[in-house]
Amino acid sequence: MAAATVEVTWDVEYILWAPDCQQRVMIGINGRFPGPNITARAGDVISVTMNNKMHTEGVVIHWHGIRQFGTPWADGTASISQCAVNPGETFIYKFVADKPGTYFYHGHFGMQRAAGLYGSLIVLDSPEQPEPFRHQYDDGGELPMMLLSDWWHQNVYAQAAGLDGKDRHFEWIGEPQTILINGRGQFECTLGPTRKSFEKLLNENVETCVDDQKMCSDQEKCLRRSECGPYCPRSQCAPVVFNVEQGKTYRLRIASTTSLSLLNVKIQGHKMTVVEADGNHVEPFVVDDIDIYSGESYSVLLKADQKPASYWISVGVRGRHPKTVPALAILSYGNGNAAAPSLQLPAGEPPVTPAWNDTQRSKAFTYSIRARKDTNQPPPAAADRQIFLLNTQNLMDGRYRWSINNVSLTLPATPYLGAFHHGLQDSAFDASGEPPAAFPEDYDVMRPPANNATTASDRVFRLRHGAVVDVVLQNANMLREEVSETHPWHLHGHDFWVLGYGDGRYDPAAHAAGLNAADPPLRNTAVVFPHGWTALRFVANNTGAWAFHCHIEPHLHMGMGVVFIEGEDRMHELDVPKDAMACGLVARTAATPLTPATPLPPSPAPAP
Amino acid sequence: MAAATVEVTWDVEYILWAPDCQQRVMIGINGRFPGPNITARAGDVISVTMNNKMHTEGVVIHWHGIRQFGTPWADGTASISQCAVNPGETFIYKFVADKPGTYFYHGHFGMQRAAGLYGSLIVLDSPEQPEPFRHQYDDGGELPMMLLSDWWHQNVYAQAAGLDGKDRHFEWIGEPQTILINGRGQFECTLGPTRKSFEKLLNENVETCVDDQKMCSDQEKCLRRSECGPYCPRSQCAPVVFNVEQGKTYRLRIASTTSLSLLNVKIQGHKMTVVEADGNHVEPFVVDDIDIYSGESYSVLLKADQKPASYWISVGVRGRHPKTVPALAILSYGNGNAAAPSLQLPAGEPPVTPAWNDTQRSKAFTYSIRARKDTNQPPPAAADRQIFLLNTQNLMDGRYRWSINNVSLTLPATPYLGAFHHGLQDSAFDASGEPPAAFPEDYDVMRPPANNATTASDRVFRLRHGAVVDVVLQNANMLREEVSETHPWHLHGHDFWVLGYGDGRYDPAAHAAGLNAADPPLRNTAVVFPHGWTALRFVANNTGAWAFHCHIEPHLHMGMGVVFIEGEDRMHELDVPKDAMACGLVARTAATPLTPATPLPPSPAPAP
Repeated sequence: MAAATVEVTWDVEYILWAPDCQQRVMIGINGRFPGPNITARAGDVISVTMNNKMHTEGVVIHWHGIRQFGTPWADGTASISQCAVNPGETFIYKFVADKPGTYFYHGHFGMQRAAGLYGSLIVLDSPEQPEPFRHQYDDGGELPMMLLSDWWHQNVYAQAAGLDGKDRHFEWIGEPQTILINGRGQFECTLGPTRKSFEKLLNENVETCVDDQKMCSDQEKCLRRSECGPYCPRSQCAPVVFNVEQGKTYRLRIASTTSLSLLNVKIQGHKMTVVEADGNHVEPFVVDDIDIYSGESYSVLLKADQKPASYWISVGVRGRHPKTVPALAILSYGNGNAAAPSLQLPAGEPPVTPAWNDTQRSKAFTYSIRARKDTNQPPPAAADRQIFLLNTQNLMDGRYRWSINNVSLTLPATPYLGAFHHGLQDSAFDASGEPPAAFPEDYDVMRPPANNATTASDRVFRLRHGAVVDVVLQNANMLREEVSETHPWHLHGHDFWVLGYGDGRYDPAAHAAGLNAADPPLRNTAVVFPHGWTALRFVANNTGAWAFHCHIEPHLHMGMGVVFIEGEDRMHELDVPKDAMACGLVARTAATPLTPATPLPPSPAPAP
Repeated sequence: MAAATVEVTWDVEYILWAPDCQQRVMIGINGRFPGPNITARAGDVISVTMNNKMHTEGVVIHWHGIRQFGTPWADGTASISQCAVNPGETFIYKFVADKPGTYFYHGHFGMQRAAGLYGSLIVLDSPEQPEPFRHQYDDGGELPMMLLSDWWHQNVYAQAAGLDGKDRHFEWIGEPQTILINGRGQFECTLGPTRKSFEKLLNENVETCVDDQKMCSDQEKCLRRSECGPYCPRSQCAPVVFNVEQGKTYRLRIASTTSLSLLNVKIQGHKMTVVEADGNHVEPFVVDDIDIYSGESYSVLLKADQKPASYWISVGVRGRHPKTVPALAILSYGNGNAAAPSLQLPAGEPPVTPAWNDTQRSKAFTYSIRARKDTNQPPPAAADRQIFLLNTQNLMDGRYRWSINNVSLTLPATPYLGAFHHGLQDSAFDASGEPPAAFPEDYDVMRPPANNATTASDRVFRLRHGAVVDVVLQNANMLREEVSETHPWHLHGHDFWVLGYGDGRYDPAAHAAGLNAADPPLRNTAVVFPHGWTALRFVANNTGAWAFHCHIEPHLHMGMGVVFIEGEDRMHELDVPKDAMACGLVARTAATPLTPATPLPPSPAPAP
């Protein structure tokens, strides 16, 4: 099949929107939130002409899961792969949809993802790259993708100011107000609970939060500017309905671009078969519910094998004490007609997602993901290089930071890719060495850091082209006693093999032999569990500058990431578009010091 | 006296702040709002090293009233005099404090001024440039400058989204929640009224809004994170107190950087003598109260000639139906000790500022401003060029815009100054002609536009160096019948002579002879009254790119301005710092079309 080009033009702009029935300003695309879905076929070229219509903010868009072989400047990471595109300017993202799978896109500058800049990206399989589970669901059995996110009423500028606050001025973003399914949720309204049942929910994890009588009863307050039918089908915060026909099997794509939350998806009366993770084939396994961390994606097969009716889909928070009501959607055995007014509310109560603090259950789910047997591509047998990344929470000059081997990431004004391409690396960032690739042997990962001070740096790991790299993510205790959080780490430009997980400190002597070299899953995002470790392997075969970071938005904001430079000796050969690097030192042609011209004295007796 | 250099380093960053006792995110400088005061002496060089510590927004700072002879790149207007300074970058503003007077500085990119990016700038007189009224106030009689502003609880991104909204999605910003004096106000709290008295206020214009018992009674709600004594002296929203000694005469500088509001300042039991306007000497005149439009500044002499006590200072809204409570400050005849706890509240009620809709009173005040007789610099007798600027409200593709001669200003990505300096003007903006310099003879300024459609353009007026230019600002009816608003127009790079004002349409045959060529005041901001006209003259002797615009923030956002290019033939001689122009076409060295490299196909069977 000949490759096509999927061309779209997007205006990125501020919009007033009510994703959870309360109006706020968001970053939308073409006047809508979430941004438009892109669907391409494997091998197609995707070309997005992005106009920055915001007034003072630069913008980039990252194509999460696309590896960008040959087009590292299109990865959409500000300060790493390109300059943020200035207000009033246009940038064309042009890249190959390199393999079939479930992806999404999002802002990757400041906290713009959390401001609403995201959408879904689907790459269909092709004759050259068939999906082996394609025959397992019906023709026309592709359901709309389910893109999950979380939402705060406080804007991201205030969130950032709180995170940046020194000493007692620090303010954590807290738990989200609302979980969104395809950009829609209901904050204490419509499908949401009353305050009374909200408290009950907190105590009893999840109970019903639906009151037929209350739906759309408070339109004035909740559905400002939206047209509202019996079930608010056209409103910005109407519940999402997935329509199925009895007897058919469907493919449901699920992805999470949350700022913070680990979510769990459970469908009333239905099991799911996991077949894809992050665009890679998974040995199928059946689950009652599915955990999904920020940055991850899955495809599940869903058989409409129950009696024709409506069924609840619950999306609940796990991993953190949930203060947020589960999001609800509806699976409807209709006639395939999306006209919502005839929709019956499901009988019974929405399913209860697993207890937030049942970490063993989370581990069991994650550990059960293996590469699909018949398409397995096992990793190279040995690594050329090992990098250990200790994740710690620290304080720096009275500010909270997250650090990797006691270095908190800051980004330079000149993007790394441009710096290497133009030979400016010695002036664009601290190129005097790499960040530490290990941490002290006596560091006790089970206790708060003995020395909580950290430093910030924009140093990078510089990987030889083709090197096989092992990374061990090592979690640790936070500043507070007996607390360690879950961090989903996402790698740009690659999938990696997840060789294994474990509790406590990784010990090569004890653990290396037990790693899975046979059928480790390929992924672009992997979680490191509280007080645990995760071992990954990838091949540094993609010339470019690639971020590797915790996908929790405020954690990245606070420095939780590293940057890999791959094939720096080949960087000058790249055909980097000038538009991608029109900032920083590159924009000034050569590195010029900040020496403004001395102003002239006022003209002698100037006329006014 | 030898000129000195006043050097400061500023971090521009988001801060959480409670300017009216409610916490919001603002753009602060060095962790505070408003930004630090700068005081220099006439002839000094001011050098501000500005670090942009925001995460996604560019930033510039405009030095309002400084003419920037020889340093047009330091005027701080994004897209006009320089590139917005990107996040993580530094720019040094270095310019001469060219003449004594009362100035301020503020953001000039998007609506960043309205987000709180402003502060005061005082230029003291010098032996070379003495102020003739200096002997009229006591030594040490310079009171802290009074910088006035207005404040919305809705952030500027949402404000912009509302203003940009198409058709029924348009949302006007409405009236401010709070008037701020030196960045402090009290929203329905502390000194503010109860809701009941608020309604009474609206009906009866102004009454008392002080309840001794209520001060600081609601600290938890209002004064988050602030330390609060009996009169909240250290809080972010504590009332401002001006301390005086009986018998002395003081100089009080007043400036307004409101987004929207025309304000009036009235001091209980005291008269004021106006001596300076916008850094120019005014023939002294005595007033009970003073109108001040956004962009204007005044100095008044204030004699502490009443019995030792405290007196209210009221700052009320005029020109628009006020929905905002007057701001209050206190003039205290103390012992010069700023320790507030011993402060007595003024007796009686705060003075009532004049009725909002008494336009005749506003005109009387403005018309009474004349150049000071003993330092008068009359204008050149005749103009080389006349430009008529019709101010209209219009619709463009379903969006509200403000237009000048039916053209609504948009700004290019490449700053005009850089475009001319580098000879890129033909590609950087529409250089095919000037915008219209007049409007149809049959346009009826008393009625809504017959044709409300408008166009947007980035064309500029190109003025010959040294040309004497006359500008007539012509106001007109808005889209709604029988409504015309007041617009304060501010010119960058210059003062202008205000030759006259009038009602209805300006008719050269009838009005030209009556203009004041003898003692017109020099100013940098002049108001055009509803359905009226204002005639100005200036000399285009300042090589550069200069904005001339309505100083109402949302009006400028909606296109209400023009740009003057002066001395374009000399532009290439300017020693423009590279840092000022590291964006747009200049950053790409030469004008390059948007043709990204065609992406490579995926590597043959790439390792993942």
